[in-house]
Amino acid sequence: MPATEANTDAVHTPERLTLSASAIEITREICDIESVSGNERRLADAIEATLADAAHLEVIRHGNCVVARTDLGRAQRVIIAGHIDTVPVNGNLPTRFETIDGHEYLWGRGTVDMKAGVAVQLKLAAELSEPRVDVTWMWYDNEEVSSDLNGLGLLAADRPDLFEGDFAILGEPSNGQVEGGCNGTLRFELRTRGVRAHSARAWVGDNAIHKLGAVLELLAAYTPREVEVEGLVYREGLNAIGISGGVAGNVIPDEAMVHINYRFAPSSSVAEAIAYMEELFAGYEILIVDASEGARPGLDATIARNFVAAVGAEPRPKYGWTDVARFSALGIPAVNFGPGNPLKAHADDERVATAQIIDGERALRAWLSGN
Amino acid sequence: MPATEANTDAVHTPERLTLSASAIEITREICDIESVSGNERRLADAIEATLADAAHLEVIRHGNCVVARTDLGRAQRVIIAGHIDTVPVNGNLPTRFETIDGHEYLWGRGTVDMKAGVAVQLKLAAELSEPRVDVTWMWYDNEEVSSDLNGLGLLAADRPDLFEGDFAILGEPSNGQVEGGCNGTLRFELRTRGVRAHSARAWVGDNAIHKLGAVLELLAAYTPREVEVEGLVYREGLNAIGISGGVAGNVIPDEAMVHINYRFAPSSSVAEAIAYMEELFAGYEILIVDASEGARPGLDATIARNFVAAVGAEPRPKYGWTDVARFSALGIPAVNFGPGNPLKAHADDERVATAQIIDGERALRAWLSGN
Repeated sequence: MPATEANTDAVHTPERLTLSASAIEITREICDIESVSGNERRLADAIEATLADAAHLEVIRHGNCVVARTDLGRAQRVIIAGHIDTVPVNGNLPTRFETIDGHEYLWGRGTVDMKAGVAVQLKLAAELSEPRVDVTWMWYDNEEVSSDLNGLGLLAADRPDLFEGDFAILGEPSNGQVEGGCNGTLRFELRTRGVRAHSARAWVGDNAIHKLGAVLELLAAYTPREVEVEGLVYREGLNAIGISGGVAGNVIPDEAMVHINYRFAPSSSVAEAIAYMEELFAGYEILIVDASEGARPGLDATIARNFVAAVGAEPRPKYGWTDVARFSALGIPAVNFGPGNPLKAHADDERVATAQIIDGERALRAWLSGN
Repeated sequence: MPATEANTDAVHTPERLTLSASAIEITREICDIESVSGNERRLADAIEATLADAAHLEVIRHGNCVVARTDLGRAQRVIIAGHIDTVPVNGNLPTRFETIDGHEYLWGRGTVDMKAGVAVQLKLAAELSEPRVDVTWMWYDNEEVSSDLNGLGLLAADRPDLFEGDFAILGEPSNGQVEGGCNGTLRFELRTRGVRAHSARAWVGDNAIHKLGAVLELLAAYTPREVEVEGLVYREGLNAIGISGGVAGNVIPDEAMVHINYRFAPSSSVAEAIAYMEELFAGYEILIVDASEGARPGLDATIARNFVAAVGAEPRPKYGWTDVARFSALGIPAVNFGPGNPLKAHADDERVATAQIIDGERALRAWLSGN
């Protein structure tokens, strides 16, 4: 290492976040620290350095995850988590304020998914030195990419001791509502086979692509189920998300593939979802490529019911798969609760209503303070 | 250029083919000179050098095409052509002899498509110093690849004067029969459009891949037409030869494409074929990517009828597009006539019945000699 680089490292002092500012300002500050998946280090450093000042918190660093725990001997412990990465920036940084129909929005990458939620969490972590439950705050990296990189998953594998808790709240955007559980998801490749031939003499061959017609017609006509689980209605989905086939411009193809995604209600296990697909596509060659269990809403636990009542929300089902499923798999009831409209997540015009940030902070602060 | 390389070039003497050997042996000799498309130079050099010895021929070199002409002042001139390239070798060189059910075959890349035909042509070019018609022999490169590289096409563009003739014979494999004309071919991309959305909330989007179902069902159910042209029945073909679509594993796709090949009888022009496809797929977005006119059989010309009678063949339609269409477009009646089963062209077990080579040589020699 050249001396100059060593010097640079030696004098490197992480930024500190201004957590005394409003949650809206904190959202803006952490959005403008770009942290696309894989590039979370600068933001993780800033979070770690800022919370190191808080005497009521034990701060633990694990890769680019930061965990901060109270240890007040409370009867219950709640895990409150949020991911600090975003999908790639697409001309939508730095952030700016916009007013639409008289409502103020903070516009830019990450404002919805999910730095507004993280900002609320950071502010409360710093300010609530005497919450009525012990809290384990978790901020993690690589949520928006392949599951094997997910910081929360890696943390759970290395430090299961940190995953003790009676309830978990994930700050994913839910329009300030409580969204319980999540659908499971299954991806599989369905293949058809034929016989290759020169396309000038097609009758010698057997066209594999043509055989996908019946599969696509089935998908087009399929009505997804709506399944009630613990009082919430989960809407399923069955879709082709990719299709491929073909050898050359003058060859009858001997193989074709459609890639299908089945989003299934948390009343079904992955095994049951696979069995259902095998029944629906009986006679076709199927290869499972990815599967994640859903999560039941877990809203029958007393602490979960209390939380829902306290924040004054009507619980709804979460359709997309989120990390609540990891808590659910560990036996910890978990919900999504965060500011921002999920339909604006990943959008180029991603923006959060600033009123939702303030409302979210007030509700979570009240519940944690026992007021 | 280093002196050693210059020396190597200076002493380079092209091989000479043994055209006094049997046409079977010549086939073997020129097959074992590998000449996959783009690599024809060595074989073209050998042909040029060998025929330079024949006093009755004017030899013209154009790229890796070799033209050899008689100029005997005959009343009619016939063009006899063959391509010297092959599709890629796949463990099927060098050639070998095989006996199957008591019949002898020469096995290996190029034996069928179309070096057996070229071998017959080379032998007759060298030996027939007094044919009853003037003959323009043409051996050309790059037939098996993109049309814009085709040596015959490039020669026709640069030297239209060489394409004077009353009749043309292309030595493409036709089982020793006369195959007249060829189907035209049209390739087009058919696209469907939808609305992109997260696959967890598919009902917000509109799946473009699902819309291909109806197109594939139409293709699967379609019965190709059989069209009689000048007494020959051409069988058409309509096939998907490629399909694609998909954005990511969690996205409802907003675009999908199926690539379709229509092989149409030479009674239709390209414009008519396009109009028919636009009618069949009315309402779909279509992009034409490639089109070649077919060729009518041309068997009503007196010289063509004489040829068919002389070689004792029953004329058949050619389904695949061949370079006879180039002659047809120039107003020269043209047929395919060569040894080898076209179903073995491009096959890994490509092999020609040696009896077909001898029969083909005898028939063409008799017709050219006027015996």
